[in-house]
Amino acid sequence: MENNFIDIAKNAKQASLKIAELKTEIKNSALNKIAEAFELNKEEIFNANRLDLKEAENLVQQGEITKSTFNRLKLDENKMRDMIQGVRDIANLEEPIGKNLFIRELDKGLTLYKVSCPIGVLGIIFEARPDVISQISSLAIKSSNAVILKGGKESKNTNRKILEIINSALAEVEGFPQNVVQQVFSREDVAQMLKCDEYINLIIPRGGNNLVKFIKENTKIPVLGHASGICHIFVDESADIDMASKIVVDAKTQYPSACNAVETLLIHKSFKKADELLASLQLSEIKLVSEPEAWDIEYGDKILSYKFVNSVDEAIEHINKYGSGHTDSIITTDIQNAEKFMNNVDSAGVYFNCSTRFADGFRYGFGAEVGISTNKTHARGPVGLDGLTIYKYKLVGNGHIVDDYAKGLKQFHHRNLPLK
Amino acid sequence: MENNFIDIAKNAKQASLKIAELKTEIKNSALNKIAEAFELNKEEIFNANRLDLKEAENLVQQGEITKSTFNRLKLDENKMRDMIQGVRDIANLEEPIGKNLFIRELDKGLTLYKVSCPIGVLGIIFEARPDVISQISSLAIKSSNAVILKGGKESKNTNRKILEIINSALAEVEGFPQNVVQQVFSREDVAQMLKCDEYINLIIPRGGNNLVKFIKENTKIPVLGHASGICHIFVDESADIDMASKIVVDAKTQYPSACNAVETLLIHKSFKKADELLASLQLSEIKLVSEPEAWDIEYGDKILSYKFVNSVDEAIEHINKYGSGHTDSIITTDIQNAEKFMNNVDSAGVYFNCSTRFADGFRYGFGAEVGISTNKTHARGPVGLDGLTIYKYKLVGNGHIVDDYAKGLKQFHHRNLPLK
Repeated sequence: MENNFIDIAKNAKQASLKIAELKTEIKNSALNKIAEAFELNKEEIFNANRLDLKEAENLVQQGEITKSTFNRLKLDENKMRDMIQGVRDIANLEEPIGKNLFIRELDKGLTLYKVSCPIGVLGIIFEARPDVISQISSLAIKSSNAVILKGGKESKNTNRKILEIINSALAEVEGFPQNVVQQVFSREDVAQMLKCDEYINLIIPRGGNNLVKFIKENTKIPVLGHASGICHIFVDESADIDMASKIVVDAKTQYPSACNAVETLLIHKSFKKADELLASLQLSEIKLVSEPEAWDIEYGDKILSYKFVNSVDEAIEHINKYGSGHTDSIITTDIQNAEKFMNNVDSAGVYFNCSTRFADGFRYGFGAEVGISTNKTHARGPVGLDGLTIYKYKLVGNGHIVDDYAKGLKQFHHRNLPLK
Repeated sequence: MENNFIDIAKNAKQASLKIAELKTEIKNSALNKIAEAFELNKEEIFNANRLDLKEAENLVQQGEITKSTFNRLKLDENKMRDMIQGVRDIANLEEPIGKNLFIRELDKGLTLYKVSCPIGVLGIIFEARPDVISQISSLAIKSSNAVILKGGKESKNTNRKILEIINSALAEVEGFPQNVVQQVFSREDVAQMLKCDEYINLIIPRGGNNLVKFIKENTKIPVLGHASGICHIFVDESADIDMASKIVVDAKTQYPSACNAVETLLIHKSFKKADELLASLQLSEIKLVSEPEAWDIEYGDKILSYKFVNSVDEAIEHINKYGSGHTDSIITTDIQNAEKFMNNVDSAGVYFNCSTRFADGFRYGFGAEVGISTNKTHARGPVGLDGLTIYKYKLVGNGHIVDDYAKGLKQFHHRNLPLK
């Protein structure tokens, strides 16, 4: 199964050209075939997963992986059902490719179409959770991209089995090209992937901060993702104490290790219920920290930095300085301050009176996500199918040449036509 | 005027946060002020330009720069008029920032807005043409981005004078922040710019292939542009000979050094008028070349590679292998072949019965362009204001927390609302 990486990358490139124009029906029937194959062969997947878990148990005992990594690695009936449903959900999403983004008549008989199309070849590097393979492969297929996956070594048996089932299912779908979904296993493959800008168009890392940072620092290929999630909540002078407490508790404790969990609480110095707020957080078993060294720590735990600020402006300044551009929320009853905050905080998500934990592709209604991006180009925030597309311009003429326009014999009229 | 680069970059970052939410009226009045200042001070610009031309004349004589670089460097009344009109045209374009891209009610009282916003700080590295400063500065202001410009040393006096006039004009506009448009001059500044991913969000090189390649190879900051323009025209079996000849002549000779000029002609082997076509090209003083080494040469001159192919499929394969993903055209009367070509050629522009020279922001109706991108992410093809924007998500709730949805107490309904 292991090939030379460059061959894998070339094959992916070839596959990407073939899947680019595949009909919606074929892609959807491929996805439904995969879901069916998971159902039929789930015992095989559980068996492979048990092999990984056995090895992982030793690693936990040796202190080499954490108990939470172990838990993420473990597939059970619930996760399997979600995984299978996830594939079917993606099949049911709207076709993202071939959409006319605009149609513009440049001149009589000369019409420009801006049409959505796939990016090409995606390189996905992920840790532990083996259900990522299924989700990313499905999103790649739906968006007509080829994909090369590199999972964590902890889940290698599970990953290998899942991919085997995916590719057996795809082989049964008439007209579906080979090599759309491929997998690599070694560190050397990752090193080559990061250098392979000739064939790979986008890298998506899914994992801890160190993985993402390493990847961003070691490739010239565009990387979609986030290295850290230092999210803030600013409790303004006029905030409702009950709302503030409820939202901060949710943002910190509902899933503390999530990237969209709050890490720093900023409180307006004139907020009269500050003591009550802090007490309520401690009641919810949140450990409070107030040291300047804390402003750029992502705890991933029930620990929260807090700081008093003089104004919404100081809150904005603090967030733009120490934040990671992920998701930041203001709790206030002052609409003007809310607008100022949302306009001036330079983050992918700027929230008003709600929990930072809403930053998620499912919650935003994207159906599924490849991850959350803090990039300032291409795609920002939770990234669904749209972030896996780009566009091309199709221009249809009838012998039109530029010289006629350069000489003034003809003139552009640039008339937008209705989208079909 | 020359500061430490990191200070310049930090100032640009600060400026980018301030210009991000500037009202349309202030930005447009700033642009009109710049146009006015150019009119009032054009003699000063011509004087500075004469200094550059004097030095450049020596360089031409010493063979260090080409006559065509010299010509691009020269500002005359016509270029000045176009430059001034260009600024006013950009003022008249639609506001690109603050547009609702979608509005979605996630649940009762919880509404998500996807809103266009600026990218942040642009780094522009360009050669010779001093009017680029005016165009890029105007596009940056209109799209609420800060910009750091590095021009060619050949035009340093002109660039310095133009920037001085721009910044004097901006200083007169009430509420317009400082340091939105800054300039650097040395190679060391470029080296630092390419490393400065903390403050610079996007690099746009405008210049020859070597400049662009150097930049792409030496930065981790996203680069928007194209290193080469190997554009193709495929003349299909069923093509009309007159149309084919007219289009190829236009695409090769109308402006041979443009990136969207055709470099390789592919001819279906069953096209009966091939000899006539080639003869007509020679009549138009196009030198024809037919060697396999020629498939990836960008001549930038009236030289054209040509090759016979067996089918539209072979043409597509050739283009996807040797092309640069810029712009490629098919001449045919066979609609099915045209569709196949446009769907399967993996280029930013795929054309049917028209000249590759149409690949241009003005011709596409974008008003102005920062360049043409062959990237597969963010922006592709001619890039206007849209390519200088990204988006943020604004979420407005009323005390909403994720735990209610995780526990099933509430459910998302994801209802799109009409755009205002």
